[in-house]
Amino acid sequence: MEQTMKACLVDESNNLYWGDVEKPICKDDELLVRVHATAVNRADLHQKEGLYPVPPDASPILGLEMAGTVEQIGKDVSGWRVGDRVMALLSGGGYAQYAAIKADIAIEVPEELHLDQAASIPEVYLTSYLNMLQLGGLSSGERVLIHAAASGVGTASIQLAKAVGAKVYATAGSEEKIEVVKDLGAELAILYKEQSFREIILKETNGHGVELVMDPVGAAYWEDNMEVLALDGRMVLYGTMGGSKIDQVDLMPAMLKRIHLIASTLRGIPHERKVALKNDFVEWVMPKFRTGEIVPIIDSVYESFEVNEAHARMKSNQNIGKLVVRVPS
Amino acid sequence: MEQTMKACLVDESNNLYWGDVEKPICKDDELLVRVHATAVNRADLHQKEGLYPVPPDASPILGLEMAGTVEQIGKDVSGWRVGDRVMALLSGGGYAQYAAIKADIAIEVPEELHLDQAASIPEVYLTSYLNMLQLGGLSSGERVLIHAAASGVGTASIQLAKAVGAKVYATAGSEEKIEVVKDLGAELAILYKEQSFREIILKETNGHGVELVMDPVGAAYWEDNMEVLALDGRMVLYGTMGGSKIDQVDLMPAMLKRIHLIASTLRGIPHERKVALKNDFVEWVMPKFRTGEIVPIIDSVYESFEVNEAHARMKSNQNIGKLVVRVPS
Repeated sequence: MEQTMKACLVDESNNLYWGDVEKPICKDDELLVRVHATAVNRADLHQKEGLYPVPPDASPILGLEMAGTVEQIGKDVSGWRVGDRVMALLSGGGYAQYAAIKADIAIEVPEELHLDQAASIPEVYLTSYLNMLQLGGLSSGERVLIHAAASGVGTASIQLAKAVGAKVYATAGSEEKIEVVKDLGAELAILYKEQSFREIILKETNGHGVELVMDPVGAAYWEDNMEVLALDGRMVLYGTMGGSKIDQVDLMPAMLKRIHLIASTLRGIPHERKVALKNDFVEWVMPKFRTGEIVPIIDSVYESFEVNEAHARMKSNQNIGKLVVRVPS
Repeated sequence: MEQTMKACLVDESNNLYWGDVEKPICKDDELLVRVHATAVNRADLHQKEGLYPVPPDASPILGLEMAGTVEQIGKDVSGWRVGDRVMALLSGGGYAQYAAIKADIAIEVPEELHLDQAASIPEVYLTSYLNMLQLGGLSSGERVLIHAAASGVGTASIQLAKAVGAKVYATAGSEEKIEVVKDLGAELAILYKEQSFREIILKETNGHGVELVMDPVGAAYWEDNMEVLALDGRMVLYGTMGGSKIDQVDLMPAMLKRIHLIASTLRGIPHERKVALKNDFVEWVMPKFRTGEIVPIIDSVYESFEVNEAHARMKSNQNIGKLVVRVPS
């Protein structure tokens, strides 16, 4: 007899509701996790509206991360016990009571963290670790400009940048966000709606610019990003919230400065790269959560029945840090 | 009393002639080289017309490379003897009877090579080594698209790509160039004036595309380059012969494929990076010149009084490989 579970589904008006779906089967190389909570990512909003194609083999259910407890262990899996607390990046399926995950991407939740906190970690911290540290190569003494710095990825990036010894410049969209960004250690926080980050950063760095730009905005920031990049600067483009189409691009500034542009998305990278990323992350970042050097920045924790409110809050760009959603118990 | 030498100068009509200038002084960390020959680079044409600003501290005389014999040795320099055959990348000053070069960027010319050949090596081989192997990271089994493949850098790149075990696709502008490119080992050579490299490469690779594009063209090829790049592909942009301004750029293809775009110029990199590059090059590439696995591809060797003909040949894109110019004896 087939077993069912509650999962978050989308109705014709693009509203979320909890309905019954088939409970996932735990394959031989998997862990079946009783999910405690998931967290909202911008991709969820797009996927809900049919604008984000679900990768093949991924669950059609929303949710790119979750934390919970191990309920069942595939027969080829070792090193885990039923009841262990675990978190993971998912290619989908986090908004559900159960998730079956490949054991090789599971991350043990340290006792210092609540499962609500753990659910907020995988997507933004692995995104930032991949994009800013591995691909962007940020190192001690360098200057990094972090756009959308009060977002989930932004607040993670500020902390990781400080942990490697970099100097952080940041942009954010409200006075309240500016305060949080400064508290996290940004040298300079720029209210982009009122000030030109280009002018401020060039002035602040005596015309030198920054070694790295972390940009989820795209088209709207392209020209100013090129201007604030230093000689041999790198830019990691990991989103196009400000559009993807740019009129009149001049490649000459990039040539003269020998810019490296790295376009990156976490979701589509092959499983084996996710495993390698997770392993590096567990070694280098997870100990910093235990000591409190790095903390999950959580805007709000929602009960399962409040999931539409969580989405509305992200859609209106009000959140500072992550939006956690508990799944039905 | 000041010593003079012959050097190539530019008259008001932008014609080259050999006139008298001050002979360079050999500083303590330098070698003074009696130049045998230099070679023509596109930057020389631009510089002659006042379109390429000479970097500070560089000689205002044309010439980015040369080969000759050591005539004098700075007092802090060891490891060289008067009469040794030497070649080097220069920031300027190759079109002259003497060049003073930092000893740490001098490359010994192996006995298997004539000095005419040696003069043709530094600029294109170091450009290709830096851009395709170090920055582009081309590795065995990968596919690379080399544009302007019959040029100096192009012919060097084909050979270096074959040496690392990559599969080479190439574009060139005449049937004669296509033949040379194929002889050097290109799997496929595309006459870009008559055929779409985008269509041919996507067909040839079953839609997969190439892991690396080496592009000195810029704007004119941008969109097609993005189309032929594979998932996780890299493009090294090292020139803008086809313009630098693009009317409309869509960042989405780059995002979806996680493209790395690396803009690179050799001339402006700091001296210490040139030294490191030269050291790697001497270790990895120079032995292949001795065995003949890699050969300098020379279009023509000109006597000093034919220097304007050499420039005219490059300007009309007729050359296949390098144009060597001997300096007055």
